Amino acid sequence: MSTPHRARVKVVKIGGNVVDNPAFLARFLDDFANLQGPKILVHGGGKIATSISRGLGIEAQMIAGRRVTDAETLRIVTMVYAGLINKDIVAKLQSRGTSALGLCGADGNLILSRKRDPLPVDYGYVGDPVDFNLHTAAALLDAGLIPIVAPITHDGRGGLLNTNADTVAQTVAVGLAPRYDVELIYCFEKRGVLSDINDPDSCIEHINSTMYQTLKQNGTIQDGMIPKLDNAFRAIDSGVGQVVICSAEALSMKGYGGTIISNQ
Amino acid sequence: MSTPHRARVKVVKIGGNVVDNPAFLARFLDDFANLQGPKILVHGGGKIATSISRGLGIEAQMIAGRRVTDAETLRIVTMVYAGLINKDIVAKLQSRGTSALGLCGADGNLILSRKRDPLPVDYGYVGDPVDFNLHTAAALLDAGLIPIVAPITHDGRGGLLNTNADTVAQTVAVGLAPRYDVELIYCFEKRGVLSDINDPDSCIEHINSTMYQTLKQNGTIQDGMIPKLDNAFRAIDSGVGQVVICSAEALSMKGYGGTIISNQ
Repeated sequence: MSTPHRARVKVVKIGGNVVDNPAFLARFLDDFANLQGPKILVHGGGKIATSISRGLGIEAQMIAGRRVTDAETLRIVTMVYAGLINKDIVAKLQSRGTSALGLCGADGNLILSRKRDPLPVDYGYVGDPVDFNLHTAAALLDAGLIPIVAPITHDGRGGLLNTNADTVAQTVAVGLAPRYDVELIYCFEKRGVLSDINDPDSCIEHINSTMYQTLKQNGTIQDGMIPKLDNAFRAIDSGVGQVVICSAEALSMKGYGGTIISNQ
Repeated sequence: MSTPHRARVKVVKIGGNVVDNPAFLARFLDDFANLQGPKILVHGGGKIATSISRGLGIEAQMIAGRRVTDAETLRIVTMVYAGLINKDIVAKLQSRGTSALGLCGADGNLILSRKRDPLPVDYGYVGDPVDFNLHTAAALLDAGLIPIVAPITHDGRGGLLNTNADTVAQTVAVGLAPRYDVELIYCFEKRGVLSDINDPDSCIEHINSTMYQTLKQNGTIQDGMIPKLDNAFRAIDSGVGQVVICSAEALSMKGYGGTIISNQ
């Protein structure tokens, strides 16, 4: 619940489609730098890791269409996500007057994960978050620093784990909620949740949980959008004020030109 | 000058010889985790970047025996130093109960550098530090976080720069001096400054600047040790309390079993 004493924090998540395209990334970082108030950026990986793996002759292992993170792949994604992409974003934000500080889940013990059970499918060094360190996040935000989070976490026993970036963003948003009024903004390829999948401009401006049940039942919302929205409502049930699903190009627009998900 | 109100900070630098050897690194991190009080670790690169470059078919360019950092090499060292090595150290320190937080010079604008003049020799994307952000460092230390610094800095215009790790350590130590009593500890291959280059146990326990002049004049100290000691005295002249040159294996020993350099 919002009180006048709580600071607002925006948690923005971008995916590989932004990270992979320098012009798109530059424009997004302009908009992110202009967002007012405390904020955190969570970024995904993109195709760079795949091309570097290929360059090194490491074949991507796939099980049921999902990449398996073996020891070599973990080294590559750590390098690329927490090194190359993260520091490139940080340096570019510094040049835009934003004092970004890049980190992964191991840094300051920000996100502790549990290695995913190898049964029924062994995805390798993949982690599911179990704890968030509010002390670390608050220390950075209080110092006026803007955390830039790479989707790598740790197991508390010295090992790093590859972690889904959407899940990292949700973990950060939910973890901040005991102290801040949190807005979680997922940037993705479309303008928002569409009422007509064939019409990119048919963006639904606002969805609450009652509307969501109706939209699911009448088939307006289906397929890949259902887990996204289930996650969004789970974040709201865990204290996040609102979740926005929008295009990375719309961050400077009022209401982000996307879909706002809340319980109001 | 030391006053009772100033906190002490240890700045420890390790080189590639520690980073490249997992058993040696594990032992060092045990000792580092046991060091009391606020501390910062600066790490060098090691041979991993060279082997990954080779794997990707990137030939190391050398001029006068020094590596040239072209655009591709900058990407590799950013990945390896600020990603792979830095996060490996951070995760391993977390498992030892030390809340490490890894960063490079771009993070929190910690170290701003100037790209080295391309004349007389163009070393490419190599930076020489010009500014240190005491606010960022103090915010991390005040929060009980242990900064782990990779030798990559930034130019303030969105670009990253490869930077000598000894220079990074000195920049950190000198930059902390206005607020902290700083001890700068350079770990290297030998026990310390030797009075007889052929006797690894002939370590000189203490050198002040008067003694240094004598030892240089009588030829006891020569070659590669002279720039190291010149740097050490420059740090002391800039406010660092003392500089230690010792072996990475001696960090748990009283006086680090090495050479202490000070003006006392």
